[in-house]
Amino acid sequence: MAQNSVEKAPVTLLGLGAMGTALARTWLAGGHPLTVWNRTPARAAALSPEGARVADSAAAAVAANTLVVVCLLDDASVEEVLAGTDLADKDLVNLTTSTPAQARARAEWARERGARYLDGGIMAVPPMIGVPEIGGYVFYSGSRELFERHQQTLGVPAGTTYVGQDAGFAALHDVALLSAMYGMFAGAAHAFALIRKEDIDPASLAPLLADWLVAMAPTVHQTADQLRSGDYTKGVVSSLAMQVAGTPTFLDTAAQQGVSPELLSPYFTLMRRRLAEGSAEEDLTGVIDLLVRK
Amino acid sequence: MAQNSVEKAPVTLLGLGAMGTALARTWLAGGHPLTVWNRTPARAAALSPEGARVADSAAAAVAANTLVVVCLLDDASVEEVLAGTDLADKDLVNLTTSTPAQARARAEWARERGARYLDGGIMAVPPMIGVPEIGGYVFYSGSRELFERHQQTLGVPAGTTYVGQDAGFAALHDVALLSAMYGMFAGAAHAFALIRKEDIDPASLAPLLADWLVAMAPTVHQTADQLRSGDYTKGVVSSLAMQVAGTPTFLDTAAQQGVSPELLSPYFTLMRRRLAEGSAEEDLTGVIDLLVRK
Ligand SMILES: NC(=O)c1ccc[n+]([C@@H]2O[C@H](COP(=O)([O-])OP(=O)(O)OC[C@H]3O[C@@H](n4cnc5c(N)ncnc54)[C@H](OP(=O)(O)O)[C@@H]3O)[C@@H](O)[C@H]2O)c1
Ligand SMILES: NC(=O)c1ccc[n+]([C@@H]2O[C@H](COP(=O)([O-])OP(=O)(O)OC[C@H]3O[C@@H](n4cnc5c(N)ncnc54)[C@H](OP(=O)(O)O)[C@@H]3O)[C@@H](O)[C@H]2O)c1
Repeated sequence: MAQNSVEKAPVTLLGLGAMGTALARTWLAGGHPLTVWNRTPARAAALSPEGARVADSAAAAVAANTLVVVCLLDDASVEEVLAGTDLADKDLVNLTTSTPAQARARAEWARERGARYLDGGIMAVPPMIGVPEIGGYVFYSGSRELFERHQQTLGVPAGTTYVGQDAGFAALHDVALLSAMYGMFAGAAHAFALIRKEDIDPASLAPLLADWLVAMAPTVHQTADQLRSGDYTKGVVSSLAMQVAGTPTFLDTAAQQGVSPELLSPYFTLMRRRLAEGSAEEDLTGVIDLLVRK
Repeated sequence: MAQNSVEKAPVTLLGLGAMGTALARTWLAGGHPLTVWNRTPARAAALSPEGARVADSAAAAVAANTLVVVCLLDDASVEEVLAGTDLADKDLVNLTTSTPAQARARAEWARERGARYLDGGIMAVPPMIGVPEIGGYVFYSGSRELFERHQQTLGVPAGTTYVGQDAGFAALHDVALLSAMYGMFAGAAHAFALIRKEDIDPASLAPLLADWLVAMAPTVHQTADQLRSGDYTKGVVSSLAMQVAGTPTFLDTAAQQGVSPELLSPYFTLMRRRLAEGSAEEDLTGVIDLLVRK
């Protein structure tokens, strides 16, 4: 134990794309013995001067250490790379982006091969890796024991957030947050489009837009409260009826500015559908239920 | 002048709905002589004990003071209410939500009647009025001289942000920010829908979601930079090609979770269209141009 606190845990890493290389550098910089393998050998060789041990094959890399991290293109490449390796008694941590179903299947696949399994979803881009102050982090789900055993090592490249025993939950959280982000990007795109032909500097709109989005983001807490209680009228400030009544202003403005409403109208359509079901006094939360298949 | 700094400027306010009443209370609490009128007299009478002077007609209310603020349902009600009033030499401040075109037409209409005109777009809900610390504010556009003359009085209910001489710009900024907010809400709705049938507490997703949206909101600064320069590859971290390649994970996850992609796919469709035009190395900014009619 005393030794562990001085010597850093050895890590095997398969996959040295943009993300894998960023991860590798943080472990090397942090003094972790690191064994790497990459399909294209040049990317592994590039890390050798920084202290990485370059394995000749994925099988040799896996054999080198108990903790095996994979960060490959997609789930199919994980299958391909790990197929010829002996995973018995390995601690497999899969940081490859996948769907929840792929992660669950991969966990089962690993279990059948005698490995413990932890799935990860990276909420960061390579420049954020190794700079945890900027707030990038990785969702983990699957074996809690595995997570706790390696939390310190896994925390070197980025923050760690454990979200449950279900191996699919890391991917689900990852996809949920990124989906929400694309919604925000779509909204911002519409906003910038509205001023595109006006004598308004986009750089003067940007801080107003950023501040407004930051101010409105915490409304998701009220949404969560309403979803939990099932009472979508709880704490409502602007009722669904009021907000639906306001939608023509948004659509008319888009039309006046020559902007397609295609990114805005699907949400308004759902608001109107929910209102038509008789939920005038509710918040916008009922829209969520319209999205989910019964 | 010395007197002005002690005695507060008198205000006339037409319209005492939820918003008008909130505005009225802040001017009364701030010691401004306030003359009010509302179509339904009971709402005006309710403010009498708090010191409001209740006018018998819109015309009488307008006649009472130079500064006339209107906060009515919509542009049509503004026309209706002001039709029988004498606006000559009045400082008309219209806080009624409207489209940019309505605001411009109303400014011209006011000018024809001898009034100076300032249009406002309220970025707040009634509970935020009189509590500027929570960050609610009002966009103003139109006469800069009018804005400067009354800025102190107008600043009593909420912060003030002047966005240009074009009377339509307040409405345009208002609509742009709220449109972006609906995009963010749509994204958050999709995220909550994804976990709806899972054993995940929405209240545990909410802080992760709020923090992520807050962290990603400042990307609009880079978007603005790219729009200004016309170079959409400037500072790109995740290229359009990479992001389009990632979209199946989002759509497959939605399908797995039984969630309709209708709020997500329109943005992905535009991403793919832009990529098909050959902009692989760009950021997502090109989507904005696809929204604007040539
Ligand atoms: N980059 C980001 O911003 C980011 C952010 C969050 C999550 N992620 C996730 O992190 C993972 C890696 O991303 P990345 O940015 O590093 O991607 P990348 O730069 O495209 O690298 C892909 C890696 O996968 C390897 N690979 C692909 N197909 C393979 C196969 N059939 N057999 C063996 N190896 C194969 C590549 O090897 P070669 O060198 O031989 O081509 C390379 O090491 C992905 O799942 C991605 O979604 C990335
Ligand atoms: N509430 C918000 O969260 C919010 C936020 C931002 C902006 N705004 C904007 O502020 C404005 C007022 O909103 P609000 O919330 O106060 O609305 P509200 O509670 O529905 O009140 C509407 C007001 O307009 C009056 N009115 C409607 N039609 C009229 C007509 N034909 N003639 C005379 N008066 C008429 C109503 O008089 P009666 O009392 O006689 O019905 C009432 O005073 C709107 O433009 C709204 O978009 C509101």
